[in-house]
Amino acid sequence: MNQRGRDPENEQPVAPPAPRKRTGGRSARVREAVLAATLDQVAEHGIEGLTIGDVAARAGVAETTIYRRWGTRTALIAEAVTELAAVGNPAPDTGTLRGDLQQLAEQISHLISRPGIARLLGTTIALSTDPDVAAARHSFWNERFERTAHVIRRAVDRGELPDDADPREFLETLSAPLYFRLLVGDSPLDGAFIARCIDHTLTLYGKPE
Amino acid sequence: MNQRGRDPENEQPVAPPAPRKRTGGRSARVREAVLAATLDQVAEHGIEGLTIGDVAARAGVAETTIYRRWGTRTALIAEAVTELAAVGNPAPDTGTLRGDLQQLAEQISHLISRPGIARLLGTTIALSTDPDVAAARHSFWNERFERTAHVIRRAVDRGELPDDADPREFLETLSAPLYFRLLVGDSPLDGAFIARCIDHTLTLYGKPE
Repeated sequence: MNQRGRDPENEQPVAPPAPRKRTGGRSARVREAVLAATLDQVAEHGIEGLTIGDVAARAGVAETTIYRRWGTRTALIAEAVTELAAVGNPAPDTGTLRGDLQQLAEQISHLISRPGIARLLGTTIALSTDPDVAAARHSFWNERFERTAHVIRRAVDRGELPDDADPREFLETLSAPLYFRLLVGDSPLDGAFIARCIDHTLTLYGKPE
Repeated sequence: MNQRGRDPENEQPVAPPAPRKRTGGRSARVREAVLAATLDQVAEHGIEGLTIGDVAARAGVAETTIYRRWGTRTALIAEAVTELAAVGNPAPDTGTLRGDLQQLAEQISHLISRPGIARLLGTTIALSTDPDVAAARHSFWNERFERTAHVIRRAVDRGELPDDADPREFLETLSAPLYFRLLVGDSPLDGAFIARCIDHTLTLYGKPE
């Protein structure tokens, strides 16, 4: 249950997910409230402006609760960002590569339009020399890529992609144009654009239909 | 001479470039010093932290000189960012589409690795609701796309691309993976990656060789 982002059929040497206490009840509620408060603070004030005190006040818990559970500001931010990266959980499993890519691209579009995500992603570029920010960035992308790699591995198993398909390279090709529109900011992520991204990726990597 | 970014053979209804006084001598030196100081300030403190006073002190000119010439902080930032976007001036003209794309991709790689550019691009995402930031972002990308559109138009003229090739769409496809690596931050923009970006773009848009 704690193996989110791993496929037991295709075990890969990936970084293990951060340990999560799932003791239920009050503990689970505290965790949820603190992570939500962390993301809200990041959305409003950026990673650089986040303090444990502000998060504690917003979540309605004691600062010591946060320090005891997460240890450091860095660990707290990384876990909150990993939660955010999990948008679209579980990874799509529609039965076809094209169907999965459609859902994935829509999830990316949805993620990008979430309040605060532009601020978060922009900050990870702008302040990439800040260790907390770099850790948050690494957590975010690691979670995104590892979670969605299953889509590619299943397509290989079904014979829709060649055996040597590289999940990371494939997902980079699908995702880059979507995130590039976030960077440029002038064009919508509409259905026609999503369809083009999928067609391009399948043209470049898919087996002839 | 002031028509940078326009092709007289292929006049397009684009936003005109900002008027530039090129009176030479002291005036040109002041302009250069102020724009360089603006970019240095952005690199160190971000767009959000830039003040006319700081730029004036850094450039060794009076604040009134900046206000008289640029009018507003917004106009100053937009012009400085437009200069930065012009990295790789003039647009490549090697005689072949592939040669031009190679130079373009190398220019993007060079631009991304400039001190301060990550901060600038990240800020334009993070603070996109700030009018000054939004204006800077628009100036930057408008300059990038308009400047390089000539590469595509020349390839169409040479018969290397179909007549209906859309320069913006083509350049988005080439550029997105390069900028996406800046966003993710975990992988280098090396020669092999640049070669893949070019191959992909030509596969998707080029005529069969």
